[in-house]
Amino acid sequence: MGFKQYLESLNSYEAGKPIELVVRDYGIYAEDIIKLASNENPLGTSDCVIKAIKKEAKNAFRYPDDSMFELKEALSKKYRVYDKNIIIGAGSDQIIDFIIKAICSKSSKVLISATTFAMYEIYAKHNEASVIRTKSGIHKADEFIDEYKRHNPNLVFLCLPNNPLGDCLDRNEVYRILDSISKDCIVVLDCAYMQFAKYKDKAKLITPNEIIGKYQNVIYLGTFSKLYGLGGLRVGFGIATDSIIATLNKLRPPFNITNVSLKAALAALKDKKFTQETLKNNLKEMAVYEDFARTNNIEYIDSYTNFITFIFSNKVDSTQLSQYLLKNGIIIRNLKSYGMNAIRITIGTKKQNKRVLKYISKYLKR
Amino acid sequence: MGFKQYLESLNSYEAGKPIELVVRDYGIYAEDIIKLASNENPLGTSDCVIKAIKKEAKNAFRYPDDSMFELKEALSKKYRVYDKNIIIGAGSDQIIDFIIKAICSKSSKVLISATTFAMYEIYAKHNEASVIRTKSGIHKADEFIDEYKRHNPNLVFLCLPNNPLGDCLDRNEVYRILDSISKDCIVVLDCAYMQFAKYKDKAKLITPNEIIGKYQNVIYLGTFSKLYGLGGLRVGFGIATDSIIATLNKLRPPFNITNVSLKAALAALKDKKFTQETLKNNLKEMAVYEDFARTNNIEYIDSYTNFITFIFSNKVDSTQLSQYLLKNGIIIRNLKSYGMNAIRITIGTKKQNKRVLKYISKYLKR
Repeated sequence: MGFKQYLESLNSYEAGKPIELVVRDYGIYAEDIIKLASNENPLGTSDCVIKAIKKEAKNAFRYPDDSMFELKEALSKKYRVYDKNIIIGAGSDQIIDFIIKAICSKSSKVLISATTFAMYEIYAKHNEASVIRTKSGIHKADEFIDEYKRHNPNLVFLCLPNNPLGDCLDRNEVYRILDSISKDCIVVLDCAYMQFAKYKDKAKLITPNEIIGKYQNVIYLGTFSKLYGLGGLRVGFGIATDSIIATLNKLRPPFNITNVSLKAALAALKDKKFTQETLKNNLKEMAVYEDFARTNNIEYIDSYTNFITFIFSNKVDSTQLSQYLLKNGIIIRNLKSYGMNAIRITIGTKKQNKRVLKYISKYLKR
Repeated sequence: MGFKQYLESLNSYEAGKPIELVVRDYGIYAEDIIKLASNENPLGTSDCVIKAIKKEAKNAFRYPDDSMFELKEALSKKYRVYDKNIIIGAGSDQIIDFIIKAICSKSSKVLISATTFAMYEIYAKHNEASVIRTKSGIHKADEFIDEYKRHNPNLVFLCLPNNPLGDCLDRNEVYRILDSISKDCIVVLDCAYMQFAKYKDKAKLITPNEIIGKYQNVIYLGTFSKLYGLGGLRVGFGIATDSIIATLNKLRPPFNITNVSLKAALAALKDKKFTQETLKNNLKEMAVYEDFARTNNIEYIDSYTNFITFIFSNKVDSTQLSQYLLKNGIIIRNLKSYGMNAIRITIGTKKQNKRVLKYISKYLKR
């Protein structure tokens, strides 16, 4: 058949196990399952968002406003940029797709960290580009600068903070990287978890209007899937110079965001109480996981996100531990596919975390 | 900057004017505006769908089930195919995008009708492919067969029925085209409006399980945006051999459908009363437009969709007519950008159609 040859070697992204599947596979009641595998907001959906969705339901038959006027206006006020500096995607994922498609072909090189968000590589491969990785999984400025100089890539992704590890470069380190990269090379700052990072440590804060004023080759990405609790509605955004945004918009399919999602995102931006509670719960409960790790001699990565990564010694196998937790109705992310004997746990509610740690503890004592 | 050169010449799709924009531009109350420009369902959103959306609202924080188990199961029952024969896209648009991306590059050729859905060409250009058009806007089997033989394209789109003209090939004509095309060439049957066609005339009916059993190179596309009244929620589907679907799935981004949209589509499939009412209203009101056209000596295309195309003689300019209607709060689609002195009107409710025809009549008598 007429399909491109290279597609044969492509793999799809493997999503976290949804609750429905665990219900089917293990016969556990949905109510008894704790899913802390996809960094969803443990406080659920904000009441303001629920209200907005219900109100918009009757308009499902209408195509969405493709100009996304209201949401862009709200974002432009929040980030103090013009609406022509903003593109909205079906998750920041889709903007990553546009960027890579707009830049990469067979001869292109994309520089990323050794362990980072899987979609950079997947979209790079869709366009037959080569992926270059730094030596460390944790972002290190010197490694990015060295690899940039060595390979002269067309595109660089900095994941700030980094998923699935949780580490985050300081702002001055990010600027040091940007200062050593040529203006011909696009640099993407994937800030999906940035709000968690800056809440914990002001030194991590990246401000998109400052960044795009200083660096014409930088694209800032944000998402509504994490802090705002809209993982299911697929809304993310990119901020860059109007010239970059105009180019990316050429690859944006019409109506890429549902009208329900547009209204939900608008409501989510306004619900400051919900986001503050989320940030507070996250920091407080993160400390519980850190305490547990220290007490049990588990290595962990200092996290600036809403998840924590536990790295195990040879005595514990992360796949077996993940299976054990799954059988007990707890879904977390095993990082074996990233080449690590580690698990990533989304920080849940106090009650959820207590149960997760109880079962990890049980497993370790067997 | 490092963007691909050919992007400079790309244009974006121009969406129909949303009601919000007419409110802003003309100061007309939203309640007084009739939008019959995007072939949305004039009966609005089905009550079952509204209920399903409201019920799912609280789950907005969860990522969608990426296996789309429930919706695929419902579609596989309806169309009597396996779930591995189904791919779900954010509108059938997105599946068109996957198909073209999977097949086309600079040296590829895509055969389409002279006047048809704009996205075929837009996505072809995203992949630098050439577009070959038949001579007629209306689909003609002989023209497709001749152009296929002359150009040996990699991909053919049949729009059944055809948007924005409304014409539809008979099933036996479609089979005649498929019989003369090599198995190396993928043929897409875009059946976004098929339910309207088969309701009017059984000779138009294309059955996906029959088609994919007979032709291993054919992809059938359907949508929830028209008959099912879910234009705002972006759900479409493709049916083909498991081998084709597996290939297309490699290009499908994870979580490409929102969880709200998945539940809404499932509810829409079940609401047979709503779809029957939609079909009945459409056929009845279509006749009102046809009568009007005949009485006023306006040429129209016999339509198998939920819209009708009026073609004007030199005495009437479609752009001026469209402007006149807009100022009176009526949004229809001017087909000047398709090189036609014509307008496309979505068949509305009895009340809406009456007002539209009143204003067209007023304009013609000026």
